[in-house]
Amino acid sequence: MEVINLHRSIRKYKNKSIPQDILHSILLAATRASNTGNMQVYSIIVTTDQEIKDKLSPCHFGQPMVTQAPVVLTFCADINRFSKWCELRGAQPEYDNLLWFLNGATDAVLAAQNAALEAESQGLGICYLGTTIYTADKICEILELPKGVIPVTTLIVGYPDEQPELTDRLPLEAVVHQDKYRAYTDQDIENLWKEKEASEETRRLLEINHLPNLARIFTEKRYTGKDNISFSEAYCQVMKKQGFLK
Amino acid sequence: MEVINLHRSIRKYKNKSIPQDILHSILLAATRASNTGNMQVYSIIVTTDQEIKDKLSPCHFGQPMVTQAPVVLTFCADINRFSKWCELRGAQPEYDNLLWFLNGATDAVLAAQNAALEAESQGLGICYLGTTIYTADKICEILELPKGVIPVTTLIVGYPDEQPELTDRLPLEAVVHQDKYRAYTDQDIENLWKEKEASEETRRLLEINHLPNLARIFTEKRYTGKDNISFSEAYCQVMKKQGFLK
Repeated sequence: MEVINLHRSIRKYKNKSIPQDILHSILLAATRASNTGNMQVYSIIVTTDQEIKDKLSPCHFGQPMVTQAPVVLTFCADINRFSKWCELRGAQPEYDNLLWFLNGATDAVLAAQNAALEAESQGLGICYLGTTIYTADKICEILELPKGVIPVTTLIVGYPDEQPELTDRLPLEAVVHQDKYRAYTDQDIENLWKEKEASEETRRLLEINHLPNLARIFTEKRYTGKDNISFSEAYCQVMKKQGFLK
Repeated sequence: MEVINLHRSIRKYKNKSIPQDILHSILLAATRASNTGNMQVYSIIVTTDQEIKDKLSPCHFGQPMVTQAPVVLTFCADINRFSKWCELRGAQPEYDNLLWFLNGATDAVLAAQNAALEAESQGLGICYLGTTIYTADKICEILELPKGVIPVTTLIVGYPDEQPELTDRLPLEAVVHQDKYRAYTDQDIENLWKEKEASEETRRLLEINHLPNLARIFTEKRYTGKDNISFSEAYCQVMKKQGFLK
């Protein structure tokens, strides 16, 4: 599918709102995704209000697209709605555990990718924000998420104001295993990263970062051990607070 | 997009293999999905071997499609490959934590949904298997997943041998919140589930299950509290064993 193969993340958006019927088709597409037991244990917060987008902006490290793009979609695992229905019917919901966090998170991400592709098929651009995990606590507060609801990912949607090149990927054989997982030899790893390491983009990054190789840019600049541990602990606390972990 | 709006899960497949070029386009589509920092922290195990599918079958509770469909795709969070590359380059990987489980799981699910839609656009059918979470330990063994790799979801792919109706969904307003989460009143819940509860399908299920309402079918038959807790504990153990939780 062309829309899949032409995907690039868009980080600059036009100051132009999304017509209601197009937004509706994006949200409808999200709900057509597969989901756990057709229980739809996710929610989508559609933020178009400028004031709330301004509040969300620091949660996403102040990336300008959060306030510039017309729509911010926050996808959440949600066992609150389903549990409420169970309670009204005299059924005992017990979804306050890791399994249902995972089910809800999977539902949320499947819905998000349908929304992303539907948006792109309508000429819009999208960008996922991984920062959602880092600052989930603050996002819960701003979006007034009750117990049983936790943010999993965020999708920025709007009209692109840039045309970036297609991003490179590792060769297909890097991520695909036939029948069983094959252990990578050192030589496999060398081969799989060869092209990426030799690229002009990598050369540019090494120069800017004053580091001898690309791997160290990841471990020392982009995703440091210290951050990884502190964000893990923070999200674990949010999982407890929102009722997905004891 | 038609392919999104016409999706239904397929549980009966023809005994017909998928041509290599089509399988290739499905896997390529998977890799075009957004992913964390373009680090591609996921792997796809493509199982076509009948013997291995037979071994996987009990992990998915013996559902016939696992052995009948030509291809079983197991999507895994994978920090093993990236960490190996870091080590070879003298960089210190610290991805053995919850954050990178979440990043890897999100990458895996986004890739899966691209694969699902590409497959459907080529006339194939798909079905997700949530059982992947329940029996992750056994799946790790069968697919020989090393530390740093954990199964997140499974996609069955093949030529449909049934044409099920489109599955119902809750009204769009059930899952969509404008700007902030709105608390559901009892009346909201009544309205949102009204159509589902009044359906012929629900009437049929109540009769089969000898229960007075649909909610109790979910809590007492489909997803019992006891199972929810035991599967949560089991997956938590697998996360520890595979190196994503201390």
